[in-house]
Amino acid sequence: MRAVDLIRTKRDGGTLDRAAIDAFVAGVTSGSWPDYQASALLMAIFLRGMTAEETAALTDAMVRSGVRVAYPGLPGVPVDKHSTGGVGDKTSIVLAPLAAACGARVPMMSGRGLGHTGGTLDKLESIPGFRTRLSLDELQRAVATIGCALIGQTSEIAPADRTLYALRDVTGTVESIPLISASIMSKKIAEGIGGLVLDVKVGDGAFMKTVDDATRLAESLVSIGEAAGVRTEALLTSMDAPLGRAVGNAVEIVECVETLKGNGPQDLETLSVELAARMLVVSGIEPDAAQAEARVRRALADGSGLEKLQQIVENQGGDPWAIDDYNRLPSAPDRTMVGAPRDGFVAALEAEAVGRAAVLLGAGRDTLDAVIDPGVGLMVLTPPGTRVRRGDPVFEMRHRAGRGTADAERLLAGAIRIDDAPPAPPPLIRHRLRGRMA
Amino acid sequence: MRAVDLIRTKRDGGTLDRAAIDAFVAGVTSGSWPDYQASALLMAIFLRGMTAEETAALTDAMVRSGVRVAYPGLPGVPVDKHSTGGVGDKTSIVLAPLAAACGARVPMMSGRGLGHTGGTLDKLESIPGFRTRLSLDELQRAVATIGCALIGQTSEIAPADRTLYALRDVTGTVESIPLISASIMSKKIAEGIGGLVLDVKVGDGAFMKTVDDATRLAESLVSIGEAAGVRTEALLTSMDAPLGRAVGNAVEIVECVETLKGNGPQDLETLSVELAARMLVVSGIEPDAAQAEARVRRALADGSGLEKLQQIVENQGGDPWAIDDYNRLPSAPDRTMVGAPRDGFVAALEAEAVGRAAVLLGAGRDTLDAVIDPGVGLMVLTPPGTRVRRGDPVFEMRHRAGRGTADAERLLAGAIRIDDAPPAPPPLIRHRLRGRMA
Repeated sequence: MRAVDLIRTKRDGGTLDRAAIDAFVAGVTSGSWPDYQASALLMAIFLRGMTAEETAALTDAMVRSGVRVAYPGLPGVPVDKHSTGGVGDKTSIVLAPLAAACGARVPMMSGRGLGHTGGTLDKLESIPGFRTRLSLDELQRAVATIGCALIGQTSEIAPADRTLYALRDVTGTVESIPLISASIMSKKIAEGIGGLVLDVKVGDGAFMKTVDDATRLAESLVSIGEAAGVRTEALLTSMDAPLGRAVGNAVEIVECVETLKGNGPQDLETLSVELAARMLVVSGIEPDAAQAEARVRRALADGSGLEKLQQIVENQGGDPWAIDDYNRLPSAPDRTMVGAPRDGFVAALEAEAVGRAAVLLGAGRDTLDAVIDPGVGLMVLTPPGTRVRRGDPVFEMRHRAGRGTADAERLLAGAIRIDDAPPAPPPLIRHRLRGRMA
Repeated sequence: MRAVDLIRTKRDGGTLDRAAIDAFVAGVTSGSWPDYQASALLMAIFLRGMTAEETAALTDAMVRSGVRVAYPGLPGVPVDKHSTGGVGDKTSIVLAPLAAACGARVPMMSGRGLGHTGGTLDKLESIPGFRTRLSLDELQRAVATIGCALIGQTSEIAPADRTLYALRDVTGTVESIPLISASIMSKKIAEGIGGLVLDVKVGDGAFMKTVDDATRLAESLVSIGEAAGVRTEALLTSMDAPLGRAVGNAVEIVECVETLKGNGPQDLETLSVELAARMLVVSGIEPDAAQAEARVRRALADGSGLEKLQQIVENQGGDPWAIDDYNRLPSAPDRTMVGAPRDGFVAALEAEAVGRAAVLLGAGRDTLDAVIDPGVGLMVLTPPGTRVRRGDPVFEMRHRAGRGTADAERLLAGAIRIDDAPPAPPPLIRHRLRGRMA
């Protein structure tokens, strides 16, 4: 089938068969499909959509563009969690050690922050010496020995995704549920997992602003996972305000460690425990939610989750003492508060604006080649529901000599909503979706 | 405005303003817009459409990518005709000399055949020595002296169209009414004409298969012409059977000359006279249809149209004696008949299949770099309405040693429809559209 015929089929709303999708992905990976044909097809997919079968075939072809990692001789089913991204969303760094401490095998590949959402790799790299670029050999060894590695995508994993994403980024074809789904799931499936828990964020600070859109994405992701033989489930969780209190990099590491010490903010602890428990269920370690949650809570209470994080940090070249002595983490020296505009209750702290403010301070980036400052960021001092008086500090910006604070302060001030009555707390978990296998 | 933002606007069904369209066309022409962004936008335009204003702005930007020819000091308004392409559609070579003989200034730029439709340039080049590649200087001189030149597009005319068309051809974005309209009209407007008659073909052998589609295209073309200050009108004409009796190149030249001698087939003569008359009206030479038609018929009857063709041929380096002595034209030596499958009346001769058969014989091409044989082709011996007996020859293939005849014969046999009763003759002219100026 010629490339142009395949483009015309999708353009006219038709369905591409597996051979056509394979030809496209192989052509993009090898370069035999020119960019201009790939981008025309991406736009046609964007506007015409893809069936669940097409999306699964696309994902599968993207997995096969690289290697699918195996863990020969490993007992149990490797399991991972993926979040669609939010502000202050640091659950990976809490739940991966917790799940591993409970016996799960967690070969977790994460990404970097882009735009208003942070990235797990950036946060981890604020720990001095921490290496997120491990080889596949190192990944397999880490999973076999300590049960977990927290790394970036290696070049062997779904190379077609890198090419396609770069093209989507410059051709206005990013926000397509089938293309997003295939991009996410191809990388996860290639990790070699047999179970996956998806945290699909919904709300102001999420990629998906409505429950409907988030549900469609979650359904697409779960359906792909099932098609690939991965026991997959998805939680739709609120991303209206930042998760936890810290937004940045080193500040978020501190918050994760505190959470593993039992001193974390309620929302972060609850969600991390819930997601870790689901990981134990989809990997078959625990038979049901109640037993899984009890086991995760034990790992939290007895310090084995914290110990596992220390092992992970040490195994990946990071300074293990930084877990106990936060002075070993980078920290911007200057502090500026942003106060409440009037008396009342904090009703909302708009997550997207908070995330944008963190970028302005240097904690995030708008282009993937930008450099971030691991020591800057901000703290939420009065989360939604707190009673405040006019002028009470709501945010604390942590910055270097005022860099970015003027614009960040404007955004943060605009992100604060004060009501006269205390707000109804939004549900942390909005909805659950399970595949037939999960 | 960044390219990606412009793509996203159209992707989401928005309207591009003139500045955005100018940036796109200038970027494509200069190469500063990469192909992959241009093709993503083309697909978004294909699927989302363009308003009349956007299409007019696109056309205008494409005109301004090159030169718009002027004819300083020339009395009257240069005028042209454009056909959307058909099988045996040779009216240009009849009507341009007729209109010029009546005083019209006709700077006609035509194209080559592609697929089942023939091209005026290919037909003209079957006249030994005839040059279709004239410079703009030569064009202006020809229009000033003998009133007409029949040439190909020069490199100065709408260069953006060449780049865009090449990209559309390989990205499945050809069959879009706004993109087709802008492509056609940018070239015509850049010729420097003030009046234009469009022959929008509709039917089996046409690009537009239905009157609805053809009407939409005609409306789009007329609207663009008006927006550019060109007095424009469109005729929707039938392309169910081949026009005239000859399909090929030299065979069509012979038929054109015979028509200018008064011996042409009825349909070809009628349509050529009608279109030439409309050219006299839109260029302001004659005030109304009746006087215009009478004048064209005089030019046909008194031989001045034929004489004008001879001048054009001579002016462009062609052998003027070929007009009188058809032996000077290339001619394939071999003949094979295709007969009627049964007794009855010829109800239809499906034009697309006839055009495809001509390509198989070597008279046309499927890719623009293929070489054609000017001497091959075919003749319709029994046009629709003719009573035939089984085995009576319906088509005469003119070929070289059987090249392509086996497949062509199959197509031609399949193109013949025989009924027991004589068919109602289809109307030659289905519909007329005029701009406010026309």
